[in-house]
Amino acid sequence: MYQIGIVGAAGYSGIELIKLLSNHEKAEIAKLFGHSTVGSYIEDVHPSLKNIISMEIENFSAEAILGLDLIFVALPSGQAFHAVKTAFENGVKVIDLGGDFRLSDINEYKKYYKYDHKAEHLLDKSVYGLSEWNEKEIASANIIANPGCYPTSILLPLIPMLKNNLIDESFISIISYSGTSGAGKSIAQNMIFSEVNESVRAYKVDEHQHIPEIKKYLEIFTGVKAGFSFVPHLLPVTRGIYTSIQAKIKNGIYEKEIQDAYKEHYSTKSFIRFMGNKIPEMKNVSYTNFCDIGFNLSSDRALTIFSTIDNLLKGAAGQAVQNMNITFGFDPAEGIMKCSKKLSVHKSQKLPVIFS
Amino acid sequence: MYQIGIVGAAGYSGIELIKLLSNHEKAEIAKLFGHSTVGSYIEDVHPSLKNIISMEIENFSAEAILGLDLIFVALPSGQAFHAVKTAFENGVKVIDLGGDFRLSDINEYKKYYKYDHKAEHLLDKSVYGLSEWNEKEIASANIIANPGCYPTSILLPLIPMLKNNLIDESFISIISYSGTSGAGKSIAQNMIFSEVNESVRAYKVDEHQHIPEIKKYLEIFTGVKAGFSFVPHLLPVTRGIYTSIQAKIKNGIYEKEIQDAYKEHYSTKSFIRFMGNKIPEMKNVSYTNFCDIGFNLSSDRALTIFSTIDNLLKGAAGQAVQNMNITFGFDPAEGIMKCSKKLSVHKSQKLPVIFS
Amino acid sequence: MYQIGIVGAAGYSGIELIKLLSNHEKAEIAKLFGHSTVGSYIEDVHPSLKNIISMEIENFSAEAILGLDLIFVALPSGQAFHAVKTAFENGVKVIDLGGDFRLSDINEYKKYYKYDHKAEHLLDKSVYGLSEWNEKEIASANIIANPGCYPTSILLPLIPMLKNNLIDESFISIISYSGTSGAGKSIAQNMIFSEVNESVRAYKVDEHQHIPEIKKYLEIFTGVKAGFSFVPHLLPVTRGIYTSIQAKIKNGIYEKEIQDAYKEHYSTKSFIRFMGNKIPEMKNVSYTNFCDIGFNLSSDRALTIFSTIDNLLKGAAGQAVQNMNITFGFDPAEGIMKCSKKLSVHKSQKLPVIFS
Amino acid sequence: MYQIGIVGAAGYSGIELIKLLSNHEKAEIAKLFGHSTVGSYIEDVHPSLKNIISMEIENFSAEAILGLDLIFVALPSGQAFHAVKTAFENGVKVIDLGGDFRLSDINEYKKYYKYDHKAEHLLDKSVYGLSEWNEKEIASANIIANPGCYPTSILLPLIPMLKNNLIDESFISIISYSGTSGAGKSIAQNMIFSEVNESVRAYKVDEHQHIPEIKKYLEIFTGVKAGFSFVPHLLPVTRGIYTSIQAKIKNGIYEKEIQDAYKEHYSTKSFIRFMGNKIPEMKNVSYTNFCDIGFNLSSDRALTIFSTIDNLLKGAAGQAVQNMNITFGFDPAEGIMKCSKKLSVHKSQKLPVIFS
Repeated sequence: MYQIGIVGAAGYSGIELIKLLSNHEKAEIAKLFGHSTVGSYIEDVHPSLKNIISMEIENFSAEAILGLDLIFVALPSGQAFHAVKTAFENGVKVIDLGGDFRLSDINEYKKYYKYDHKAEHLLDKSVYGLSEWNEKEIASANIIANPGCYPTSILLPLIPMLKNNLIDESFISIISYSGTSGAGKSIAQNMIFSEVNESVRAYKVDEHQHIPEIKKYLEIFTGVKAGFSFVPHLLPVTRGIYTSIQAKIKNGIYEKEIQDAYKEHYSTKSFIRFMGNKIPEMKNVSYTNFCDIGFNLSSDRALTIFSTIDNLLKGAAGQAVQNMNITFGFDPAEGIMKCSKKLSVHKSQKLPVIFS
Repeated sequence: MYQIGIVGAAGYSGIELIKLLSNHEKAEIAKLFGHSTVGSYIEDVHPSLKNIISMEIENFSAEAILGLDLIFVALPSGQAFHAVKTAFENGVKVIDLGGDFRLSDINEYKKYYKYDHKAEHLLDKSVYGLSEWNEKEIASANIIANPGCYPTSILLPLIPMLKNNLIDESFISIISYSGTSGAGKSIAQNMIFSEVNESVRAYKVDEHQHIPEIKKYLEIFTGVKAGFSFVPHLLPVTRGIYTSIQAKIKNGIYEKEIQDAYKEHYSTKSFIRFMGNKIPEMKNVSYTNFCDIGFNLSSDRALTIFSTIDNLLKGAAGQAVQNMNITFGFDPAEGIMKCSKKLSVHKSQKLPVIFS
Repeated sequence: MYQIGIVGAAGYSGIELIKLLSNHEKAEIAKLFGHSTVGSYIEDVHPSLKNIISMEIENFSAEAILGLDLIFVALPSGQAFHAVKTAFENGVKVIDLGGDFRLSDINEYKKYYKYDHKAEHLLDKSVYGLSEWNEKEIASANIIANPGCYPTSILLPLIPMLKNNLIDESFISIISYSGTSGAGKSIAQNMIFSEVNESVRAYKVDEHQHIPEIKKYLEIFTGVKAGFSFVPHLLPVTRGIYTSIQAKIKNGIYEKEIQDAYKEHYSTKSFIRFMGNKIPEMKNVSYTNFCDIGFNLSSDRALTIFSTIDNLLKGAAGQAVQNMNITFGFDPAEGIMKCSKKLSVHKSQKLPVIFS
Repeated sequence: MYQIGIVGAAGYSGIELIKLLSNHEKAEIAKLFGHSTVGSYIEDVHPSLKNIISMEIENFSAEAILGLDLIFVALPSGQAFHAVKTAFENGVKVIDLGGDFRLSDINEYKKYYKYDHKAEHLLDKSVYGLSEWNEKEIASANIIANPGCYPTSILLPLIPMLKNNLIDESFISIISYSGTSGAGKSIAQNMIFSEVNESVRAYKVDEHQHIPEIKKYLEIFTGVKAGFSFVPHLLPVTRGIYTSIQAKIKNGIYEKEIQDAYKEHYSTKSFIRFMGNKIPEMKNVSYTNFCDIGFNLSSDRALTIFSTIDNLLKGAAGQAVQNMNITFGFDPAEGIMKCSKKLSVHKSQKLPVIFS
């Protein structure tokens, strides 16, 4: 059994990590680290965990992580430097769920995150954990920067279109709607129920910290410098992101090329469900690690791509465990989906239902 | 007191019409017409109306509307022909809240609405009721086609941009999210609470019946044939539409021109609240007839325009009463907003707060 | 025009007061008082008020309220002493929407509210503003203690049962569910959307500050000392309270006596809608000042009474304006309900629909 | 591997059964039976199941179930007779998630369910599947009547109080609030989102079909004939039931006896989490098979008990699989909770956190 530590166990992603790992066959939670909660039992902090786990929250330190195989850092952005550095220096693999190790340009980091970067020398050791597109790098990484929730919901549907040269890259409109758990447990007046319920608002237009992340990895994975405008909106649901992307299709491209591109890149990926012309629904991915993708090509050659994920799973803890599985050489789905075992069975057996 | 009839009093728009007119100083409900509810009292059909109104629902007929000054037809699209024809032939003004008299091309009507048009000869008698842009026509109309909810939320923010020639009209991305009351009381499995709650889905992509309406009136009010892609989404809220529109801005255009365009067209309009760079929130317009508009111009010259309305008021019953006011020569805000009187006072007094 | 001031204009009840008074024919907002918002315009603090009102927020002082006819104090409990005292001493009527002047026993006040009472000498000048039960006292009051939201939803249905001696007063079960706006804009982790949505929890069981208020006024208005257990729950909706009360019925009492009791006390009250055996729905009272009441008498003589109100209107600002109307000698419904005028017409005309 | 069939695979409980069994180590889905969906693949009917399972839906028949070890019948009440009879006659164990085999009196069945009972002779073969109270009977049963969602949420907290003779059984008030998935996928106008959202309503007061079930099993498991009044309410959430029960406590009973009763009956039960004086929250049991129980004893000796479950899991499919585990001799938690394995580990190790 691989021994795992979780730093920031008391946040929303921390809880999801605990639930996922509690069911994992090959890795188990050995340590939980916190800050203001040190000395408490996690199931007292989160009554939802009672009868699932009983474990005291400890102070994080170099000694405390000795013997662990990997730690997850589930802290707000700007707070992961110490834990990642300590893990790296002590030979413990680390997966950071925040944004501190995703960008390579520290000026850009400072511009968007408003913090000074305190571990610049580790940036080139860090591997971006977009599981379906970076598997080889992830497998051998010591530091994995787990993708942001919005970038996951955008890169997965958009990369195949740009990589296969199907859409006009000069102007791509990206509209995302996210549930509130993406903001974590932070307390702000505009996040109280009365302010969010029965409403919608765009926010951080043109200044969201995920913009440089999307730009960087679109280019890395497709070779294309795309011009896009990303606008996040807040949605009165707890979990889920729904992304609608629009672009003009290139000359000579038809529906078949789009279908083929998705099949080419995703038909062997357990967690990507390409639905062709069917429109994804957010509820179908809630509480799962799936990313559902669909599209529509209009009569006047405007392409709309839809994707939806659970921001706490595929957009955070789920993909993080997927990355842990990759780096340990397990099946990527191990311990994540209740049903992943059946999946492989059906794949070989009676399958071709998915792209029918 | 002008005498008003409402056809389809039992639907969501019907209720809103009743509530608005119950408070109107210069017009009063004289008749309520229904179908399956004939013989019932409206306050028994809708307990929310008890102690507000007490009136029996009647059968619609030419005799029954004699003496009325105006009828509202709040029926599902495809069902308004008889009532509109009867009103017109009997010299009673009529405002149709459905889609039957908005398009001039009956083939397009049939393609998108799936019905045969049964009053083709009245199409050129019908005036489009986009209150802020068609006031003169509305004033003298006998048949007013009240705009659709999505078109209202799209035309109001988009017309000034196209009319003032500020954006690239070749590719405009329009993403709208609507609350469920837009679907009326229709019973469908995918509209039950368990299917809509905690979810989001796009629907009728590229085939929504509001597409030809948007296209037609964009051209009529701006003179520009725009290429746009409109995608409606269903939102787990009851009331409200939130529209995010993206386009490239034209060369030589800057933020000032955008600000100026909105001020030019809307600074005297009571129900349009232009917020400049502030982002609208849906809850601020709930239960009102306002349309809030804001925008963002990104560093790489992508413009995002936001608008939000209450689909049952500015998107239906509110705008309908606004149109009634215009056609009777009342103040457009009469009876609609609790607060419209104060508005004019403050306007002259201490105003210029809105565009500060 | 009576001149009105509002202290605490920036809270949820403050906004509702502004909206109500903006539409009032006989009273107008002359001053808005705030604390951290002094110097701002209210419509900048609350964009939902743009085009409705434009007014600067001032510092509260004795000079500032000179010439006003009445002030509403819409502050959290524990903060109203200074404003109420100042108003009283300067001959300005005052309606306090908080809990500081509802209890007569300052020890009980301290036990439940955790504050020292700083205006004990004014407690016997204060009149409880349960509009339907204390009209005469309210009419001549200088200080009106507006009822709490839960007590309003409980006293209105329960008083007729106890006053007419219909139920066993020794054990009454009172279960209330409230929307989140009842907690005001206070920022707490357990009030953020992610924690409230898709959930329910009881809270402050046996220690809610409304318990002594319910006890005191049940006895005052019925003469009966009742034994009850009140449990408030938090509901994932913004506005509304739903109260379900259960008790054993007394010997010799049947459905008729219950019907008669409600008709006796409420048939002339505009804002109480007694529905007999029909079950109230919260949405029917949302955004209104109504209290809907229904009941069920089971075969084994257990009575369940249901009531529902909008906590921000009948449970706060609506009842406060109703009380202002009473104290100024206006119709109780003046300016509150869009539809109140129609009501009186129908009352005399074709009415008796309500109790049919 | 035990071979399992599911009748009614397309309903909400059916989906949950599929998800649970897909992860089960010792039982696997061999057949899915439907009606209008026969011939379709389940993952096409429910896109949420794509990549989890791929299986064609078949017609139910005696031949089709040959070789199966157990079938779940997840049909609306009134429709299970044929499937249960066929299974019983062919020696296949059957768990019925509907209400057809819970009552022993067919007149009572007809009165509350409005159907004729078509398998009266099997009623005495049927065992009530309240897992924690009927384990021995369940272990050897051929027909298991899985409890209703409301009864589960009521019997679990109430039985220990009555069995240990702690409360006055003459008048017990039971107020339950349920999410909408309890109504299944049935299409009714009062279940559409616009009618349920931002609202609450009681329903089927004094006539809910779960009333005789509660009455019968309270008596069976406690020996006490209790007088209670049960009122169900509809809540604007998808999943979850919250039950608040009030009663007078008997003389000589104090908090300790209540604590002891729950510990006596539930300390070894994996899925009951007794929280003492802490108040349960619905979200803590969502998507789990737990029943969280807490209580409050007021100064004047009124006891309030709170319980909450996920209606689709502990209230339906979860408890059904728990019963399957019991009847096959597996650990009751097998395959149900991601985390159940860890539970037993922690139990023996560092446990006694739960009742501290």
